This record gives sequence, structure tokens and C-alpha cells, in this order.
Amino acid sequence: MKLQVRSKCWVERDGELVLSDWRVDLLQAIDELGSLAAAAERFGVAYRVAWGKIREIETRLGIPLLEGHSGGVGGGGTRLTPQGRELVTRYNRFRAGLTELIEQRFAEAFAL
Amino acid sequence: MKLQVRSKCWVERDGELVLSDWRVDLLQAIDELGSLAAAAERFGVAYRVAWGKIREIETRLGIPLLEGHSGGVGGGGTRLTPQGRELVTRYNRFRAGLTELIEQRFAEAFAL
Repeated sequence: MKLQVRSKCWVERDGELVLSDWRVDLLQAIDELGSLAAAAERFGVAYRVAWGKIREIETRLGIPLLEGHSGGVGGGGTRLTPQGRELVTRYNRFRAGLTELIEQRFAEAFAL
Repeated sequence: MKLQVRSKCWVERDGELVLSDWRVDLLQAIDELGSLAAAAERFGVAYRVAWGKIREIETRLGIPLLEGHSGGVGGGGTRLTPQGRELVTRYNRFRAGLTELIEQRFAEAFAL
């Protein structure tokens, strides 16, 4: 019997979605690419959609996630604030190996 | 910061949903109440909906889950087949303590 366990985790505040794998991946991509527009394009969503998600997290947590910087080689860009980077780090620490852990528990319980 | 982690797990076969918390709870209720109709009522769904879910699991796994028995005090009723009971037992073993485990990992990662 080829069974596969699937799982999904997310973070809420007062019952409202704050973080998900997708949202944290988006934050990481913004920091990596130095651009919200480029990150939105990578994830195949409109700029305003990506921007809306980020604003939603900021509002729900009450912390700024993005900061612009200008000048330097290549001109300005967008990067994560220290608080934004901290949030990504913590979420990544939380999800690291979690899928594998759930799969292992499943394999043991179902004697696969 | 009052953050709460939420999670959802389910089991698929060939990319199709087979088991979820809700489905296994329904199977357990049928066995406990001796009746698919009574279990459907407890979960607030129509009989045909509950029956459809059970049939879906049976078809996707290729095993019978319910068996009728007749006679005895109180007349006939429906209960789980040995395979159905085994499936419920395994799924319960899998999910036991899983939410707490995820919450603990989350609390550690976010230093809550």
C-alpha cells in the first residue's frame, strides 16, 4: 500500500494567518534578490499581491520587515530589516526537518 | 508576541486524499455508535456525504472498512472491519502527540 503523509504548518496571531512556508520563502527571496518586484516575479504573483502579504505580516506583528537602501553599486534595493531576518531565521529553525520528522512518525505508525 | 502554530496532516495515495483527522474521527464514531447515520448526524453532515467519504477511502485503499451485523439486542448495526479498525489504530498512533510535538518545536524555535 503506497501511502504518503502530507502536512502543512503555519503561524497565526489572534486567529489570523501571519507566516506560512510560502510567505517566508517570499521574504527570503526579497532579501536574496534585493527586490520585491523580482521576488514576486519568481513566485509568479503580481507585485501588489506580494506587497499585500508583506504588509499583512507587518501589520499583524507590528514590526517592519522591509527596508529600502539606495546608492552603491547597482543602485537601490530592498532588504529585510533585522527583525524581518530574525523572523525568517526562527521560522526556518522551526520547519527544518519537520517534514522528515512527520514522515518518520508516519512510517513507524503504519509500519511502512 | 502571541503567536500560535497551526498544523494539518493527512494521508494520500497516488496524490488523492485517503485519510484525515476528520475521516478517522468519523470511522471511529461509526464503530462507537454502531451506525453510519448516527455518526453522520454527530458530525453534522448528510448521510450520503459520510457514506461517500467512507466509500472513497475503501476504493482508494482497496479494502472494506464497514460491515453490517444483524440480530442481537437492539437489532442490526454497522461496525468497522478488522482492516478498518487497524487503519484507525495506525492513524491514531501516528497523530498521538503530534500537535504537541509541533508546538514544542515552534516554542523552541521562536523562544516563546
